[in-house]
Amino acid sequence: MNTIKIALLGAGTVGSGVVRTLAMNADTITGRSGTHIEITKILVRDAKKHRPEAEGIALTDNFDEILNDTEISVVVEVMGGLTPAKDYMLRAMAAGKHVVTANKDVIAEHLAELYAAAAENNVDFLYEASVGGGIPIIKPLKECLTANSISEIMGVVNGTTNYMLTKMTEKHVSYDAVLRRAQEKGYAEANPSADVDGLDAARKAAILASLAFDTVIGFEDVSVEGISHITEDDIEYGLNLGYVIKLLAVGRNTEEGIDVRVHPVFLPKTHPLASVNGVFNAIFVRGNVLGDAMFYGRGAGSLPTASAVVADIIEIARDIVSGTTGRMKYKIGERKKLCPVEKTKSSYYLRLVVADEPGVLGEIATTFGRAGVSLKSVIQARWTETGDAEIVAVTHVVTHAAASAAVEALEALPVVREVRSLIRVADGQEDLL
Amino acid sequence: MNTIKIALLGAGTVGSGVVRTLAMNADTITGRSGTHIEITKILVRDAKKHRPEAEGIALTDNFDEILNDTEISVVVEVMGGLTPAKDYMLRAMAAGKHVVTANKDVIAEHLAELYAAAAENNVDFLYEASVGGGIPIIKPLKECLTANSISEIMGVVNGTTNYMLTKMTEKHVSYDAVLRRAQEKGYAEANPSADVDGLDAARKAAILASLAFDTVIGFEDVSVEGISHITEDDIEYGLNLGYVIKLLAVGRNTEEGIDVRVHPVFLPKTHPLASVNGVFNAIFVRGNVLGDAMFYGRGAGSLPTASAVVADIIEIARDIVSGTTGRMKYKIGERKKLCPVEKTKSSYYLRLVVADEPGVLGEIATTFGRAGVSLKSVIQARWTETGDAEIVAVTHVVTHAAASAAVEALEALPVVREVRSLIRVADGQEDLL
Repeated sequence: MNTIKIALLGAGTVGSGVVRTLAMNADTITGRSGTHIEITKILVRDAKKHRPEAEGIALTDNFDEILNDTEISVVVEVMGGLTPAKDYMLRAMAAGKHVVTANKDVIAEHLAELYAAAAENNVDFLYEASVGGGIPIIKPLKECLTANSISEIMGVVNGTTNYMLTKMTEKHVSYDAVLRRAQEKGYAEANPSADVDGLDAARKAAILASLAFDTVIGFEDVSVEGISHITEDDIEYGLNLGYVIKLLAVGRNTEEGIDVRVHPVFLPKTHPLASVNGVFNAIFVRGNVLGDAMFYGRGAGSLPTASAVVADIIEIARDIVSGTTGRMKYKIGERKKLCPVEKTKSSYYLRLVVADEPGVLGEIATTFGRAGVSLKSVIQARWTETGDAEIVAVTHVVTHAAASAAVEALEALPVVREVRSLIRVADGQEDLL
Repeated sequence: MNTIKIALLGAGTVGSGVVRTLAMNADTITGRSGTHIEITKILVRDAKKHRPEAEGIALTDNFDEILNDTEISVVVEVMGGLTPAKDYMLRAMAAGKHVVTANKDVIAEHLAELYAAAAENNVDFLYEASVGGGIPIIKPLKECLTANSISEIMGVVNGTTNYMLTKMTEKHVSYDAVLRRAQEKGYAEANPSADVDGLDAARKAAILASLAFDTVIGFEDVSVEGISHITEDDIEYGLNLGYVIKLLAVGRNTEEGIDVRVHPVFLPKTHPLASVNGVFNAIFVRGNVLGDAMFYGRGAGSLPTASAVVADIIEIARDIVSGTTGRMKYKIGERKKLCPVEKTKSSYYLRLVVADEPGVLGEIATTFGRAGVSLKSVIQARWTETGDAEIVAVTHVVTHAAASAAVEALEALPVVREVRSLIRVADGQEDLL
C-alpha cells in the first residue's frame, strides 16, 4: 500500500486536531482511503517552538519548503486569515498540489477564483470545514441536494453568540454578564466583535448563499446586525409569545433578488432551529423537491473541525488512489441581482415605551396602519420603572422599508418615549405535519 | 452537450416523483450534471394503463427491453420489494449499466452482494433514498464522517409511527384512534404491521448499522419491538418525567459486540431527536472526532424520496461526463460479533399495577434491588379504576437481562397485579451545554 504525503499550513486549534485525528483513527482512515496518509511537514511561525502534539513531524517556517517538496501531494490550509493563506493555496494548486482548507475568510471572498485555479491545475479543492465546523453541509449542498432548486437557507452558524443567547434565555441574565462568562470560558475573544457583531456569521452566510443559489456572494453583500442590543426583557417577551431568539445567517432566493443577511430572529419554538442550543450549529435548507431539511452538529472546536478537514483529505486520497483527481470542475455562477435590505420581508417584533395615557394603544395601532404595517398583535406588556407603559407589537409580513417607516412615524408621536427594539420574527414556517 | 438516457423500473409514488423532479428542475439539473438527463423507458406492470405523468416516455412491461437497450446507461430501481428488484439490478450491472435504487428491502439484505457486483462490473451503484427518504445520510456516512469511528447511530426513520406517536403525545388519544386516523390520511396501510411492528425501521437500522460500523448487518440481526403496546398513559407519565417517546432505530458499537435494535424509547425532551415530529425523520450520529451530529428532513413521500434518487442520478451523470464511473470500489467489512439483546444496556421505565397496601413501594424497590437493578425513581402515580395503585419506576442503566429478571421477580410478587409497561429510556446523553 502506498502512502500519500500531506503538509499542514498552521498548527493551531484545527491543525492540532487534524494531527490528533489522523493518529487516533489511523487504521479506519487507512481502510477507508485505500492508502496511508502521512503528515510530513507543518508550516508554523516559529519552527523552534516545541510542539508535543506534532512529535516526529518536520516543522518549517518557510512555505517554499512545502511548495518545492514534490513528495507532498496535498496541502491542508488551517492557518486562517486572508493573507498569506489565499496566496499559499493558489501557489500550492499551481504546483499541482490538491488543497483542503477550513478558511471561511478566504472562501467567503475568493471561492470563484479558487475554483478556477483548481480547475485550471486539475487538482481537488475542498473546504467542508469553512462553515459549520464538523457538520457536513458543503458536500450535501454540492452533491446531495442537487435535484433541488433551493429557496431558503438559514443557519445557526456562530457558536459563541448561540451560547450567549442560549444562556440569556435559560438563565435570564444580561448581555454583558453572559459576554463576560463566554470570555471566561474561552468561547468569546477579548475583542468579541467578530462574533457578537455577526461578522463571522456573515462570512458563513456568504458561503452558504453562494452554494445554495449558485452565484457569487461576497462578505460585503451580506446585510449584518449583531446581538449586542438584545436584552433579557426582549427574550422574556419573546418566550411568552412562543418565540426563541437565534442569531441566524439567512439566504433567500426572492423575486426581488438574492437576499442574504445576518441578524437576530425570533423563531417559533417548534421550528427545528429553535432547539439548537449552546455551541451547537445547524443549517436549515428548503428545497423545492426535498422540502425542509436540517444539518446539526458541533460548529467549532479542534476535533469537530478536524472531522471535516480529514474527511476532505480522505476524499482526495481516494481520488488519488483511483486516479480521478480533478474530476469535478466546479464553478460558481455569475453574480445575480441582490435584494436590497429595504425590500427584504419579515414579520417584526417591536417594543415601545409610551406615556401611560388612555387611547395610546389605539394611536399606536393607527400609526402602524398608516405606515402600511398590519399587526398580528399589540399588547401593553407592563409599566416601566418611570411609570411609562411598555408595549409589544408583532407585525404581519412587511418589507423592511415599511417596518422602518413605521418606527420613524412611531418615534415622531408625542406619546412615544422610545422604540426600544425591532427584531425580525420568522414568518412562513411550513406546516410540520 | 450530450444526453444520458436512463430507465426507471417502476412508476409508483417514487417513480412519478423522479419523472416530475427531472422535468420541473430540468435546467438546474442539466447545469449541475453537465449533460442532459432523459428518461427513455419505464418498466411498468401494465404498459397499456394511461399515465399522464409519464407523457412521452415509452412504457414497457418487459425488463429485457431495458436491459438490451444499449443507449440506456443508468437503471433506476423504484419498484420496491426483494423480487424481482434485486435480480433486475444485478442483471443491469452485469450489462454495464449504473444502478440507483430506493429499495430498503434489498439494501438491508444484499448490500454486500450488490457492492461486489458493482465493483466487478465497474459501474456506479447508489442507494441514498433507501433510508430517510430525502435526507442525505448514506453519502454523509460514506464520505463526510470518514474521519470518525462511530459509536452510536439512532434514528427516527419511520414516518408512520412517528406521526402516530406525535399525535398520541399532542392530542392524548389512544393507539387505536390514532392508527385509524393515520389509515384515513394514507400514512398507514390497511395492514399496518410493517410500520407499527417496527419491520420497516428494522430494515433501515440494518442499513445504517452496516455503514456506521462497516460490517454486514441483516434484517434478521435486528432485535425489533413495535409501538402497538404503547398507551396514552405511558406517554403522559413520560411527559411528566421529562421524556418524549419515539420509535428509534438504534445501532451501537459496544464491548459486547454490535448492538442493533428497533424499539420505542423515552428520550429527554432536550435531545435533538425529541423534537422530530410528525412525518419528519432524523438520524443522529455520534463519532469520536465530530461528537454528535443530526440529519433531519422528510423521510418519505414522492418528491422528498425523488430528491435523493435524482441526486444519485446526477452523481452518476457527473461521473459519466468526467469519465470516472466505477471509481469507488465500496465493500462492507466482514461480519462482526453481535451483542445479544440480553446484554444490551439501557435505563428502563416500568409501569406496574399493585395492591394498594402499606409497604408495597418498599417491597417493590427491594425486589428491583435483589434483581440487581438500581432505581433512579419510583413513584406511586395514581389509583386505577379498580382501586389498585399504579407505580412508575425508572431504573439506572442495566442490562436487558437484568431488567427482564426484575420484571419476572415483580410479577411473582403477590402484591403485583401486572407489569403493564417496560420501555427503554435513553441514557448517556452527552452534555448539550
